[in-house]
Amino acid sequence: MTPTPEIPGPTDDFRFRVHATDGAARTGAITMPRGTIRTPAFMPVGTAATVKAMYPEQVRALGADVVLGNTYHLMLRPGAERMARLGGLHRFMRWDGPILTDSGGFQVMSLSSLRKLDEQGVTFQSHIDGTRHHMSPERSIEIQGLLGSDIQMQLDECVRLPAEPKAIESAMHLSLRWAERCRAAFGEQPGKALFGIVQGGDVPALRVESAKALVGLDLKGYAIGGLAVGEPQAVMLAMIEAVEPHLPAGKPRYLMGVGTPDDLMRSVARGIDMFDCVMPTRAGRHGLAYTRHGRVNLRNARHAEDTSTLDETSTCPAARDYSRAYLHHLVRSDEILGMMLLTWNNLAYYQDLMAGLRGAIAAGRLADFCDETRAGWARAEGART
Amino acid sequence: MTPTPEIPGPTDDFRFRVHATDGAARTGAITMPRGTIRTPAFMPVGTAATVKAMYPEQVRALGADVVLGNTYHLMLRPGAERMARLGGLHRFMRWDGPILTDSGGFQVMSLSSLRKLDEQGVTFQSHIDGTRHHMSPERSIEIQGLLGSDIQMQLDECVRLPAEPKAIESAMHLSLRWAERCRAAFGEQPGKALFGIVQGGDVPALRVESAKALVGLDLKGYAIGGLAVGEPQAVMLAMIEAVEPHLPAGKPRYLMGVGTPDDLMRSVARGIDMFDCVMPTRAGRHGLAYTRHGRVNLRNARHAEDTSTLDETSTCPAARDYSRAYLHHLVRSDEILGMMLLTWNNLAYYQDLMAGLRGAIAAGRLADFCDETRAGWARAEGART
Repeated sequence: MTPTPEIPGPTDDFRFRVHATDGAARTGAITMPRGTIRTPAFMPVGTAATVKAMYPEQVRALGADVVLGNTYHLMLRPGAERMARLGGLHRFMRWDGPILTDSGGFQVMSLSSLRKLDEQGVTFQSHIDGTRHHMSPERSIEIQGLLGSDIQMQLDECVRLPAEPKAIESAMHLSLRWAERCRAAFGEQPGKALFGIVQGGDVPALRVESAKALVGLDLKGYAIGGLAVGEPQAVMLAMIEAVEPHLPAGKPRYLMGVGTPDDLMRSVARGIDMFDCVMPTRAGRHGLAYTRHGRVNLRNARHAEDTSTLDETSTCPAARDYSRAYLHHLVRSDEILGMMLLTWNNLAYYQDLMAGLRGAIAAGRLADFCDETRAGWARAEGART
Repeated sequence: MTPTPEIPGPTDDFRFRVHATDGAARTGAITMPRGTIRTPAFMPVGTAATVKAMYPEQVRALGADVVLGNTYHLMLRPGAERMARLGGLHRFMRWDGPILTDSGGFQVMSLSSLRKLDEQGVTFQSHIDGTRHHMSPERSIEIQGLLGSDIQMQLDECVRLPAEPKAIESAMHLSLRWAERCRAAFGEQPGKALFGIVQGGDVPALRVESAKALVGLDLKGYAIGGLAVGEPQAVMLAMIEAVEPHLPAGKPRYLMGVGTPDDLMRSVARGIDMFDCVMPTRAGRHGLAYTRHGRVNLRNARHAEDTSTLDETSTCPAARDYSRAYLHHLVRSDEILGMMLLTWNNLAYYQDLMAGLRGAIAAGRLADFCDETRAGWARAEGART
């Protein structure tokens, strides 16, 4: 059994070290001036400069090393230039660890109206107040810099699946040209990183072409984008398998917007190092709890007189100390405390899962760990997790 | 300067001791098996078995010795018999200190529909699901017992002001008859208390008649009800002044549903020992902060780039650590964290105010303390507190 290495401290430059592998899976650490990200890592989503319904100290205490900020939301409110005047996103939201920001492109597509996309970039109207904005690759990098982001993402065009191969190819090529422009705009920033995003929809050959071209840009990390947008899990996993051999072993790999606990385990087994997803926080606001025993819908009447807790063995007070009957009552009553407790529980479960995966990879027993975890889910109320 | 006495520990029976007085104001302690309530006390409102947007540990840590539960809400959801099966309200909401419950009467009047009131009690329809319920004085005491309440309130009829003296008198007399029935239903419960409620609207003679008759029932505490329902503050204070000489010095006095920080100070100076009010929690969910410098509306655009905190000298992290610019952003974005932080700040301010009042009474400098506190408010953005 391989001993788990010491957690390395922050470094002046952005670095990634793999400490152990188990099949395609790896565990290691990304280090940078603001701290260390233990990988595989799950990044809680702090859309509008807050991981919803959580104090920042709680997020940190659960073991999150990095949070994600959404460039689209933050550029509209409070605004990128205002954020810079206020001292940047870290100070604003009281998170002193690393922050990753997306490019804003995905949410321009999904949330704003009157989108007009061309070679130059994308013009859109704010979903908040209808104001008109333009986002180019250069402006996306400028905004992420104003926010003070540690890991910045290239602007890309993300195609909804299913889509015609021609449309997927065209978007992938545009994303590559934008990656080059983002790289030029980002320049050299010691201690920070720009990640490229592999596109190509559900077409393996396009995914491979995208990965190879991005690797030619010698970026500090590579994301896989445009997945978890409604396609079957098998398609998502096939795309990871197609891309992974073409990504350098010494750079972190980030699967964007994924996913369920099962998605995380299967993706880690295929070589992914980083994830973000709104699932644990959003589900927590809708009465759903992730537990060792599977997913639990607290809205269900079966919990009305259940004095058991979500998980008496958890170190998270939300899982350990509150009865399901009480959580059921809070959810049915639309009480804020219900959202607070279930979000807390869910993020604790996700972070514990990642810690378990890191330990299992270090110990060379990832497959057993995943089997045991899935067997635990089967003991729940029958809900698939 | 009188030294502040030690805080007494819990006692088998319900007891009240005054440790010091300053004019009509008193400071002391109510002791009972579940703990000690330092008076004057502010009781955070935990309507539906939760002080909204707060973990119970936070409420306790701010210095709250007792919380209030709303019988009307809890009898409808989760239900009184169900609560008893679940082990009572303390265990349900994870609050092991004293709990005071109202009788349910006030919210039957203000929230339910199809109310029909007669000598026997009140019939009404739930505002949640339209189910029909009956509440008699006996049933109110039974429900409060099923909840496990430590301090229970008599059922009363509360008249909206302004009202005709005849209507006020009739409601006051009905409330007295119900007080007797509640007393009989409550019986002898060592360690617990039943409080009577002085009614009589804005008519001093009716208030005095009500107080005298209730004192004749030899209850363990006396509340003043039916105030803070829209009348001017001067009327409320005049009613306290009319009633106070007729209440026994050795029993706690509770002013129901009050109030602003200024209301609390002026009522304490007139001999009130206990308060409850939704103001700090409700205001916190609507972007309003109570501070040493007065009331601050965080929604106001003037705070958009204000990096100062609400109160850098506070021991409450919500007041001390987060910039007004960030709070403004959270409030404008309808983020749950904004409600969490402002509720926390407001309850901290209220509890700090009560601690200040207790210390000032013990030191015989209540008037100076109130003058200094009001002078502090004048430094705020001009908002009256």
